[in-house]
Amino acid sequence: MKQLIARDIADAMANASWIRRMFEAGNELRKARGPENVFDFSLGNPDVPPPAQARDVLHVLAEDAVRPCGLGYMPNAGLPEFRAALARRLSEEQGVALEGEHVVATVGAAGALVAFFRAVLERGDEVLVPAPYFVEYGFYCGHFGGVLKPVPMRGPDFALEPETLLAQVTDRTRAILLNSPNNPTGAIYPAETLRRLAAAVDRLNATRERPIFILSDEPYRVFAFDGAEVPPVLPLSPWAVVLGSFSKSLSLAGERVGYVAVNPAMEGVDTLLAAVTMTNRTLGYVNAPILGQRLAMALLDARVDLSVYDARRRAMARVLTEAGLRFTLPKGAFYFFPEAPGGDDVAFCGKLLEHGIIAVPGRGFGMPGYIRLCCAVDIGIIERAAPAFREACR
Amino acid sequence: MKQLIARDIADAMANASWIRRMFEAGNELRKARGPENVFDFSLGNPDVPPPAQARDVLHVLAEDAVRPCGLGYMPNAGLPEFRAALARRLSEEQGVALEGEHVVATVGAAGALVAFFRAVLERGDEVLVPAPYFVEYGFYCGHFGGVLKPVPMRGPDFALEPETLLAQVTDRTRAILLNSPNNPTGAIYPAETLRRLAAAVDRLNATRERPIFILSDEPYRVFAFDGAEVPPVLPLSPWAVVLGSFSKSLSLAGERVGYVAVNPAMEGVDTLLAAVTMTNRTLGYVNAPILGQRLAMALLDARVDLSVYDARRRAMARVLTEAGLRFTLPKGAFYFFPEAPGGDDVAFCGKLLEHGIIAVPGRGFGMPGYIRLCCAVDIGIIERAAPAFREACR
Repeated sequence: MKQLIARDIADAMANASWIRRMFEAGNELRKARGPENVFDFSLGNPDVPPPAQARDVLHVLAEDAVRPCGLGYMPNAGLPEFRAALARRLSEEQGVALEGEHVVATVGAAGALVAFFRAVLERGDEVLVPAPYFVEYGFYCGHFGGVLKPVPMRGPDFALEPETLLAQVTDRTRAILLNSPNNPTGAIYPAETLRRLAAAVDRLNATRERPIFILSDEPYRVFAFDGAEVPPVLPLSPWAVVLGSFSKSLSLAGERVGYVAVNPAMEGVDTLLAAVTMTNRTLGYVNAPILGQRLAMALLDARVDLSVYDARRRAMARVLTEAGLRFTLPKGAFYFFPEAPGGDDVAFCGKLLEHGIIAVPGRGFGMPGYIRLCCAVDIGIIERAAPAFREACR
Repeated sequence: MKQLIARDIADAMANASWIRRMFEAGNELRKARGPENVFDFSLGNPDVPPPAQARDVLHVLAEDAVRPCGLGYMPNAGLPEFRAALARRLSEEQGVALEGEHVVATVGAAGALVAFFRAVLERGDEVLVPAPYFVEYGFYCGHFGGVLKPVPMRGPDFALEPETLLAQVTDRTRAILLNSPNNPTGAIYPAETLRRLAAAVDRLNATRERPIFILSDEPYRVFAFDGAEVPPVLPLSPWAVVLGSFSKSLSLAGERVGYVAVNPAMEGVDTLLAAVTMTNRTLGYVNAPILGQRLAMALLDARVDLSVYDARRRAMARVLTEAGLRFTLPKGAFYFFPEAPGGDDVAFCGKLLEHGIIAVPGRGFGMPGYIRLCCAVDIGIIERAAPAFREACR
C-alpha cells in the first residue's frame, strides 16, 4: 500500500476523536433501533432557526448580488463596513474602544484561531488551555508545530484557576486559550478570576521578548442564563485577543463567519493585525464569505431565540437530576458535563448507548470521569430520554 | 519592540508580493493623478456580474434559510447533494466517472490546495511547478514545511515541457502542480503534452512508496477562447487530482466555493479523501460556505458572459501590438504576459507607472523579464490606456 497521506494526519485519523466515534456509534444505533428510539446528545449543531430578519436580508442581498463584483473579492480582512459595524458592537460588548482596523473577519471562530496561531506560533511554542477543553484546539495549533498543553482544572465545576494555569508557563508558552462560556462544561469565568490571570500575564510579559497572548474564544457569548453575564476579557490586558463567530448566536454555522479582535493597547497591534490578515489570505480562506458577512452585519444586534435553549437546559437538568447523575448546572453555552457514575466515562457512555443515548466520554475533552451531553436538540428528545437515563443509571 | 509574530511570517511580510506592492503604488497614483487617469491591470478581481439566475436562486435560499438548520453545519466534505451534482458535472468535464464521494467542497480553490497539501506533505517535501506561476502557491505548501520548486519554462509562450519538469524530480518530490489555463501566461496545456507528463509520473510512481500527485488547478477552466478546449487531466493518471472554484466562472470570488476531486482509480482514494475532509475540518474551514454551495449547485451549468472577457482580450492584444510589445496571445484565463522591453521587468513597470499604467513585474511570478497585465477590467480602460502604453514603449 502506497503512502498517500502525511504520517501525522494518518495518526490523527487512526485516533478518531471520541465525538466522531460516538457519531458513528449513533448511526449504527439508528439503524438497529430506529431513529425515533435514539437520543443523540453527541453533536453541537445549532438547530434553532436563524432570526426571522435573515429572510428579508437575503432577499435584499439577492438583488444586490448580480451587480458587477456583487459577490467579488474584497480586502482580505473583510468588508470595511462589516469590520466597522463589528468594531462598534465589540466596543460595547468588551468595553474597549475598537475601530474597524482592529477586527479581521474570518471563516468562523475556527478560522480565526487557525489564522491567529499561524501568525504567532513558532514550532515548539506552547498554548495552555484549561481542561476539559474543545478538542479541535489541538489541531488548530498543531498544524504549525504548536503544542497544546491542557492544564486540568478541578471538578465538578471546573472553575478557572489562574495559579494552576500559570504554574505551567515556560519560556515556550505563547498563548493562554480561554473559552467562556465553556465547551464542554458550560462554565462562565468570573471577572475577578480573569482579572487575576490577566494581571499575572501582564507581569510576565513585562520581561518577555515574546509575549504570552490571552486568547478568549467566545462563540457562546450570548448563551448565558439565569441572569449571568459573560465578563469581557479584552479590557483586562493589552495582550488580550477576542475571537468569536455567528455560528451559534445566529445559527449561521454552515456559512462560516467569525472574527479576531485585538486590543488596540497592544504594543505592535498593527503588525499583529497585518500578520493575521496575511495568514487569513495565504491559508486559503482569502476572506470570510461575502454573503455571510453581509448577513451577519445586518443581524449584528439580533440573535436566535435563547429561551428555547434555556428551556432545554432546564429540561436536561431535571432529567439528569431524576436519574441521579451529579453535575454542575451550566450557566452558559449548551452543554452538560456530568460525572460518570463509577468514574469510567467510556464504560458509562457504553451503558448509555445500550439505552439509546449517545453521549461523548469526557476523555474526548481531556477529562476522563465525566461525559458531555449537548442540548442543541429538540426538548422532546431530552424529555423522552428521561426513562433511558434512569435505567442506565440504575 | 516585542516579537509578536512568527519569524517566517515577518520575513514574508517584509518581502511583500509584487502584486501587493503594485497595488499600493496604484493607490498612490490614484491620489496623485485622479482615478480616471490610472489604468490598473494589477489585480484579478472578476468584475463581470454573476449569471442573472443568481438573483432567483438567492431569493429561494432566503425562504429556505430561516428553517431550523437552514444555515447550519453539514458533513465537513460538503452538502451531499452539491457533491453529487458537482461529481456529475466533473464527470462530463473530465471524462472520468465520479461519484459525490470523490469530491470535497472547499473554501475556494485556495482552500482546496491548502487542505490537500496539509493532508499529503511531510516537512521538506517538494512541489514542482512550471514557472511563471501564481505566487500564492509558495505559501499554500510552505505553511506545512513543503517547498515549492519553480521550474522555468521557455518564453515567450512558456509551453509546458514535461522533460524539463521531470528532470527536477527527487526523492522528496510529492506533487507536480499544473495550472491551465495559466495565471499569468494564459497558456492552455495541450492534451498530448499532459499525457506525456502523466505517463512519466505513472512510471515513476510504480516504484515509489510515496507517489507523486499530479495536481491540476483549474479556476480558469471555462475561460478558453478562439475555440480552444482545456484538456482534462483527471483521466491521464490514477494519481491525478483536480482542484477548482466558482470564483471566476460565476464571479463568486468573495463567497469562497471550490472543490477537490480525486481520480477514483487511485489506490487508496478513500484514505486520501478522508484525509482531505479531515484537514478541511481541522484547518478551520470546517465546510465550504453553505449559501455559496447552494448557489454554485443551482448555477452549475451557468457561467458569466465570456464574450465580455473575449472582447477585452482582443482589445488588449490590439493595444499591446500597437505599442510594439511582444507577447503570445493568451488562449485562456484573462492575463497577458508580454516581454519587458529592455529585459528589466521592474524598470519597465516603473516606466508604465509614470504613464498611469499599473502592471506587475514577472519576477512576482518567478519569471523576470516579463510583465503581467490582468484584463478583468472594463474594456474602456484598456482602450483608454492605448496612448499611455505607446508612450511608455517609446
